[in-house]
Amino acid sequence: MEKQNNLLPPNTLIGTIQRIVFHRAFSSTIIFFILINALLVGLETYPVLSQSYYEWFHIADMILLWIFTIEIAMRFIATMPKRNFFKSSWNWFDFIIVAAGHLFVGAHFITVLRILRVLRVLRAISVIPSLRRLVDALLLTIPALGNILILMSIIFYIFAVIGTMLFAQIAPEYFGNLQLSLLTLFQVVTLESWASGVMRPIFAEAWWSWPYFVVFILVGTFIVFNLFIGVIVSNVEKANQDDIKESEGTSDEDETRVEIQALRKEVADLKKLLKEIHQQGKI
Amino acid sequence: MEKQNNLLPPNTLIGTIQRIVFHRAFSSTIIFFILINALLVGLETYPVLSQSYYEWFHIADMILLWIFTIEIAMRFIATMPKRNFFKSSWNWFDFIIVAAGHLFVGAHFITVLRILRVLRVLRAISVIPSLRRLVDALLLTIPALGNILILMSIIFYIFAVIGTMLFAQIAPEYFGNLQLSLLTLFQVVTLESWASGVMRPIFAEAWWSWPYFVVFILVGTFIVFNLFIGVIVSNVEKANQDDIKESEGTSDEDETRVEIQALRKEVADLKKLLKEIHQQGKI
Amino acid sequence: MEKQNNLLPPNTLIGTIQRIVFHRAFSSTIIFFILINALLVGLETYPVLSQSYYEWFHIADMILLWIFTIEIAMRFIATMPKRNFFKSSWNWFDFIIVAAGHLFVGAHFITVLRILRVLRVLRAISVIPSLRRLVDALLLTIPALGNILILMSIIFYIFAVIGTMLFAQIAPEYFGNLQLSLLTLFQVVTLESWASGVMRPIFAEAWWSWPYFVVFILVGTFIVFNLFIGVIVSNVEKANQDDIKESEGTSDEDETRVEIQALRKEVADLKKLLKEIHQQGKI
Amino acid sequence: MEKQNNLLPPNTLIGTIQRIVFHRAFSSTIIFFILINALLVGLETYPVLSQSYYEWFHIADMILLWIFTIEIAMRFIATMPKRNFFKSSWNWFDFIIVAAGHLFVGAHFITVLRILRVLRVLRAISVIPSLRRLVDALLLTIPALGNILILMSIIFYIFAVIGTMLFAQIAPEYFGNLQLSLLTLFQVVTLESWASGVMRPIFAEAWWSWPYFVVFILVGTFIVFNLFIGVIVSNVEKANQDDIKESEGTSDEDETRVEIQALRKEVADLKKLLKEIHQQGKI
Repeated sequence: MEKQNNLLPPNTLIGTIQRIVFHRAFSSTIIFFILINALLVGLETYPVLSQSYYEWFHIADMILLWIFTIEIAMRFIATMPKRNFFKSSWNWFDFIIVAAGHLFVGAHFITVLRILRVLRVLRAISVIPSLRRLVDALLLTIPALGNILILMSIIFYIFAVIGTMLFAQIAPEYFGNLQLSLLTLFQVVTLESWASGVMRPIFAEAWWSWPYFVVFILVGTFIVFNLFIGVIVSNVEKANQDDIKESEGTSDEDETRVEIQALRKEVADLKKLLKEIHQQGKI
Repeated sequence: MEKQNNLLPPNTLIGTIQRIVFHRAFSSTIIFFILINALLVGLETYPVLSQSYYEWFHIADMILLWIFTIEIAMRFIATMPKRNFFKSSWNWFDFIIVAAGHLFVGAHFITVLRILRVLRVLRAISVIPSLRRLVDALLLTIPALGNILILMSIIFYIFAVIGTMLFAQIAPEYFGNLQLSLLTLFQVVTLESWASGVMRPIFAEAWWSWPYFVVFILVGTFIVFNLFIGVIVSNVEKANQDDIKESEGTSDEDETRVEIQALRKEVADLKKLLKEIHQQGKI
Repeated sequence: MEKQNNLLPPNTLIGTIQRIVFHRAFSSTIIFFILINALLVGLETYPVLSQSYYEWFHIADMILLWIFTIEIAMRFIATMPKRNFFKSSWNWFDFIIVAAGHLFVGAHFITVLRILRVLRVLRAISVIPSLRRLVDALLLTIPALGNILILMSIIFYIFAVIGTMLFAQIAPEYFGNLQLSLLTLFQVVTLESWASGVMRPIFAEAWWSWPYFVVFILVGTFIVFNLFIGVIVSNVEKANQDDIKESEGTSDEDETRVEIQALRKEVADLKKLLKEIHQQGKI
Repeated sequence: MEKQNNLLPPNTLIGTIQRIVFHRAFSSTIIFFILINALLVGLETYPVLSQSYYEWFHIADMILLWIFTIEIAMRFIATMPKRNFFKSSWNWFDFIIVAAGHLFVGAHFITVLRILRVLRVLRAISVIPSLRRLVDALLLTIPALGNILILMSIIFYIFAVIGTMLFAQIAPEYFGNLQLSLLTLFQVVTLESWASGVMRPIFAEAWWSWPYFVVFILVGTFIVFNLFIGVIVSNVEKANQDDIKESEGTSDEDETRVEIQALRKEVADLKKLLKEIHQQGKI
């Protein structure tokens, strides 16, 4: 909720809504309802509760959906140049989550509806500013990793194709087709049961299979590790640059230069005086 | 044991206690008794020993409990403005550990009592200053992680609710209810048997289950990783700032400026002299 | 594809080829064909497709092989001092991948041929400059790790020999011979099932086996960890040095010195003038 | 092999030995014999070879043992103040490895003897200076971790005692006694099968067991992680300090100050001149 500078006068309807929306209690109220929503979807997972109080859960959900709808409508009305509202991807996120709730309300995709209800809890991130900044910061590190993610995709794809070619008959549950191979390679790169579960049974039938796994683990973990290093180094660097900029504000160096310039002006004055004396002497 | 400045004269009782408590041998003695305590609780885990020498263990434990009680009482008496004693959370920790030992002494919660006896070994941390500083430093990094822990909780909760909704029937031992799902997600985020134990059996029955695990692992490890990065960067930064502060104390820059100022004064003297000469010339 | 400075005039054949090769669309076209190649090797893993369209896959593969052959030939012709072409290890890589495709074309090593076709996807790295720089940077970190890799090899070898000596009879599938022991130690250093899969069954028969595993894990992960630390620290350091160099380019310090030198010249002028006046005064 | 400054004249016996020992070919020869030793202990693990050529292996081993004995004897003779030899812990290491080979030569502890023969490969570290420096550097990071290792030990001990108390009956193979519990906790802290292997079977019988594992993993990995952070930060800091020291050697700042001092001297000359002129004017 960015502070809005162009508030309308309070006696108009929009002005009143703006005053409500930008009031500090507004956010707190919405966070409170998000917590209620979180509690309800949690309780609903217990079959005993969800079956006994099915009606109550449904009504509570409807009320919450309408509260969030009104909230977003009010936030939309309060945003003054209307086009600004959809410039923020967080507003889009809030809008889609709530709109989807209305769209599917009559449908029979009960699971989709319930997952949507759970995803509303994610709105806590968009409503709490410090969390929103944190997630924004986390997402900002992703584009910097673009190249390394492309490289990772190429490595994964090549190993998946080779794995499917070599082990499709030996271990169909792991390398039966390209999709399965990609999933298995993801498991291998997390180092989870890569030997006991995946390699050893294949190794028992094809002794020449070990370099495939060893090379993939060495290359995969090396790239993942460098991905991490990249983020660490860029963060440390950024922190250092911030430090440097900060310290530049009060630079000693600048003061020294100012003083030398003043000195130089004094010496120039001296020279002028001396020249005059020189002229006098000549006469 | 912070050094106390306001010691009473040694001829009073409190003064004598203060001299004892702040003596270097006092800490060593307590560490010795904590080691004895540690040894005893270790030996007690062997049924052969604990059954044969049950009485001895009980007596030794009573003696140790009273030694620690007297120690804390003495430390309390020695602390001069009495309210300072409970300002330190380590003193609270020591007090609770020992007080609980007395409270449960008559009770039948034999396991609780024995665990309390083991926890007394933790007092080694509160008694050895270097360990206490280390633990204080470790605990200080936690508040800085507040936001990322809240974010982690939201992610865990949302995935636990969705996991319970989707897999409660398929894998009741892992996703049977919300608590089980949270425990399973903790297991998954440590990457332990996430595929071989948890995902593959579910995947065999519901092929669409893989994105749930892959997304959770990517998001979960990414956040955990950023949590780590945050700590590293803030530590490196802090270390750098300490360096900068240190180096500022003996700044070359300052000396240069002092010298330029001296030079400027000299030039001002010159100008004065020259003006006098100029005046003479005119005459 | 490094920009070439010594282009021949466009009316010659080589000049025309140079203009084609260094045109921006040339790279894009090659990347397009590499993607086609990647798609084909992916589709070929599905037995349904590869059996039904066997002929088509073969023809497409031949066309792609000749496209890549012509591409490399053109790049070779365009490179002016011919010897420069094989100075780049990426050109060697491209050349070998394509040449091997021709060499094995008539052979019956169907699997080798297919793996070669998959490896052509790796050419995406050599064609996209940003990926090439990334891989070059990753490979550059390896020589710096030389000593630590030698140390790791020594540790692995010693533990493999001891492991084979001690556990060859107890766990032949893990420590049956030196090669198996090395593979098992690689599994152990990734911490995958080191206890549940490898150590516990051996421990059940030989209680004295635990230090072997605990020491190897402590030493192995400590060295791997230091290997990582080394890369992190050298990267952070390098980043810092780049910062320092950058800031030196626009050094305030230099400007200060230039100004002091100008000042000194002025003072020298003053001195000369004064000496002349002094002479006049004497006369 | 540190360079020796106080060489005796070459015509004496000791002088000749010194010239041999400090010759560059001496180290290379020893490394060659260590490689032969490594090859032999590797080949000996194959029962086919070790049984067929038992005699040859024994003879080769004796020859190598005497070569290493002579090498160390020569190094000892060449070291001039004899007491310096045993100041280096690497010399102690070499001496013990070789001396133990002689001590056990007649004994029947065949496995001990064979392990000693394998450990001779470790001498590669003491003979290659770059490896020796690396290992020295790695070992130097250990004392800095003293406090965190003590803290880790306390945590391990407390959890091992509590684990034995609570789970000795439920899971005797994991928590049967204190030693087993410590081993299991080491497995848990590496995150290996902590859930699938250790916790889940216990959890099935005692639902209240999960906090024990979750708390231990959180505390354990947090401490291990901080141990790592400590090493990273101290290394980065050290690297930075080295940079600062290096850059201080060629400080721009110093040059600036030298120039200002020269300037000041010039101005002092001016003042002297002017005063003389002033005197003249007055006359």
